[in-house]
Amino acid sequence: MSDIDQVLEYLQTHRAEWDDLLCQYLRIPSVSADPGHAEDVRRAARWTADLFERMGFSVELVDGEGRPVVYAESPRVEGAPTVLVYGHYDVQPAEDPSLWETPPFEPSIREGAFFARGACDDKGQILPHILAVRAWREAAGRLPLNFKFVVEGEEEVGSHRLERFIDEAAERLACDCAVISDTGMPGPDQPAVTYGLRGIAYYEIRLTGPNRDLHSGSFGGGVTNPCNALAKMLAGLLDDHGRIQIPGFYDDVLPLSEEERARIRAVPFDEKAYFRMLGVETAVGEKGYSVLERRWARPTYDVCGVWGGYQGAGAKTVIPGRAGAKLSFRLVPHQDPAKVAKGLEIRLRQLCPPGIRLEIIDLHSSPAVLTPLDSPYLKAAERALAAVFPHPPVAIREGGSIPIVARFQQRLGVDVLLIGFAQEDDNAHAPNEKFSVQTYHRAMAVSARLWEELRRGSDGTRTT
Amino acid sequence: MSDIDQVLEYLQTHRAEWDDLLCQYLRIPSVSADPGHAEDVRRAARWTADLFERMGFSVELVDGEGRPVVYAESPRVEGAPTVLVYGHYDVQPAEDPSLWETPPFEPSIREGAFFARGACDDKGQILPHILAVRAWREAAGRLPLNFKFVVEGEEEVGSHRLERFIDEAAERLACDCAVISDTGMPGPDQPAVTYGLRGIAYYEIRLTGPNRDLHSGSFGGGVTNPCNALAKMLAGLLDDHGRIQIPGFYDDVLPLSEEERARIRAVPFDEKAYFRMLGVETAVGEKGYSVLERRWARPTYDVCGVWGGYQGAGAKTVIPGRAGAKLSFRLVPHQDPAKVAKGLEIRLRQLCPPGIRLEIIDLHSSPAVLTPLDSPYLKAAERALAAVFPHPPVAIREGGSIPIVARFQQRLGVDVLLIGFAQEDDNAHAPNEKFSVQTYHRAMAVSARLWEELRRGSDGTRTT
Repeated sequence: MSDIDQVLEYLQTHRAEWDDLLCQYLRIPSVSADPGHAEDVRRAARWTADLFERMGFSVELVDGEGRPVVYAESPRVEGAPTVLVYGHYDVQPAEDPSLWETPPFEPSIREGAFFARGACDDKGQILPHILAVRAWREAAGRLPLNFKFVVEGEEEVGSHRLERFIDEAAERLACDCAVISDTGMPGPDQPAVTYGLRGIAYYEIRLTGPNRDLHSGSFGGGVTNPCNALAKMLAGLLDDHGRIQIPGFYDDVLPLSEEERARIRAVPFDEKAYFRMLGVETAVGEKGYSVLERRWARPTYDVCGVWGGYQGAGAKTVIPGRAGAKLSFRLVPHQDPAKVAKGLEIRLRQLCPPGIRLEIIDLHSSPAVLTPLDSPYLKAAERALAAVFPHPPVAIREGGSIPIVARFQQRLGVDVLLIGFAQEDDNAHAPNEKFSVQTYHRAMAVSARLWEELRRGSDGTRTT
Repeated sequence: MSDIDQVLEYLQTHRAEWDDLLCQYLRIPSVSADPGHAEDVRRAARWTADLFERMGFSVELVDGEGRPVVYAESPRVEGAPTVLVYGHYDVQPAEDPSLWETPPFEPSIREGAFFARGACDDKGQILPHILAVRAWREAAGRLPLNFKFVVEGEEEVGSHRLERFIDEAAERLACDCAVISDTGMPGPDQPAVTYGLRGIAYYEIRLTGPNRDLHSGSFGGGVTNPCNALAKMLAGLLDDHGRIQIPGFYDDVLPLSEEERARIRAVPFDEKAYFRMLGVETAVGEKGYSVLERRWARPTYDVCGVWGGYQGAGAKTVIPGRAGAKLSFRLVPHQDPAKVAKGLEIRLRQLCPPGIRLEIIDLHSSPAVLTPLDSPYLKAAERALAAVFPHPPVAIREGGSIPIVARFQQRLGVDVLLIGFAQEDDNAHAPNEKFSVQTYHRAMAVSARLWEELRRGSDGTRTT
């Protein structure tokens, strides 16, 4: 019996123990946003650290306002590659308990799923990676790789301590690739690797016109109206073909290859069901691209908020003194947020009419992430997924941005494997969060196989 | 000594009495908006009615939820024309008393002015007309005209009862011209007749996109964003030359004649001081027109309010489900609000992108008012003003709309003379409202002369 078979059997025979461990983890209400749960957050950090200590890892709690980053390194395995695994032990608030069928921090196993806050986001996704290492240690008596685990407690509130830790400890965190399980998959039997994330550039703009609100009758025609100006400026950032009108915006955009477009066409996606879910008949967007291409691989411009003047009931005939908006640009690989910011400022100042003062506030930004489709690590992940799930994995991208992933990629210079197991209806961030029991155990098997594949992949195709 | 000289002397010798009467009037806190002042409002109506009864007028209190229209008709003067005089006895709320130097309903005469709520808006402007009639009666022993006075108590809250009264009693209200003193003049020594008011068409638009707020990363590019759509629609109503882009919008617009443009150029207006007051450097508007032309005599389009998505601090990456705006169009003579509404709907539906549901709510509208510059009544008013003030009057227009004036003009089919005496700094609708004592007495003299001029004007130039 090979090592991997022994590991998989060990995982199989200890299922009850793994279920119990996840329930223990879920019972800790580690809500990072709520100061009332500060002690629970620290308890979850210690609980996580204990797991690693029992596996002989060296562990450090890097404190961040009492929400430590748990950093754990395995004993050295000479000649083996190093993988960095990221996850988070903090959870979203559970808010209105009346919306939960069972209490959020009393895990209930029913309908084939763990129901609890944190079940899929992210305790149920990070624990399988830890337990797969444990199974290798117990069943095979050895570790196939060098492991560096980073499990943070501030993911839901901005990852501030971890960002600093990555910057400060980039050398200690050096690795061959990074693995993150905090995203989703298309269906319970349809696994996926996410090889791309969009970046973001988010701005607030503030327009100031006259120094007071004015009567739209007496003054209309005699003063530049900030609300009219705002509409003109916001509309002027997009042309009739859905192309963003910022100088240089598309210069660095990595075009979609024919191969990738074919891959995206192959992803199961029911456009009609999607629009039905959103309650709309159709959608507009950049010409020449499908809905999935536009959501995953093309830059977009969305006004996230807009305000100015009278918003109450009935009529008020006012020319307001101020107006403003929040703008989110989603960026694709090779776009530089700093360049976007410069281009945006040039364009907005072109569009801003006389009589209006414009202020642009750069709220935050992060570049896109792309793992090459021919990355040997990505191939390794695909093999691991294919061996466990009934269908082979699809390679997908995600339209959202995970700034910490970009930071791993930028600072450590490695490929990032995003292997997500959550379903759309798993209610991350919503009441009745859940995670499939079967998927939990499949994730463990995928992880156990991935460690083996990464070692092999490294032996074979990777020369550096 | 002619009749008019006797009347003017009578007015002069009774100044103290007229001051006392205005102070009595101002002491009644007839705040129409405040139910707590309901009895005061009725008291002001009775006080007004008493004035007319003592002059031998027949008086009716037309009740409007306890805020009666005071309707008073003079004894019949055979062969004389009939003038309808409009004013209002209700006042704005006085709100924060700490902002008033003297209490709003304890009139104080200082710095040459009456300080009290209602001083210029409108008790101090309607009373001179009444007292001028009284002076004719007392000093000349006869009335030069037939008078119909309409003094309402709901001007500050929408004139609902008066609108119905005009519709119901149009025949009783039949007259040769209407006189209203509820507007302003350019300077203390610079009188004016206002011969034009803009109309208004006010709408709310509501845009509905997806049935929930969506993540701008995961969904950006895959759904039509109502905020983006709103910007496009609002911006699409105006071209780069400040022309309103609604089909047929300019078809009926009465163009400015060269004579009128010359008159407007002659009106004292310091553009630099105006922009300095508003705290702006300049303003944009319809190309080819001056600031005063644009404010007085050209139609305009102002967004009075705009909303959608996230308006709080920091970043929220949301594609909102809804957005909306309030739109005010100022109309000029011969534009039909119903036609504007139809054109607006056509244009907005053209601009509305797929994936957005559009609702348009017509909140209210009123056409513009224009008294012909060659109206014999307007000439009469100019002569009366010229005889009293150190400078001859200028003819001005006003960018705002006074829907009740349009109703008088439409229902009664007569020229409306707007002879206003308030100064910009008289604080109508603000704390420390005031009205110049000198202007109060000048207004009385103008009114006494106007009655004479209207009779003569009628004898001379008017044949119908």
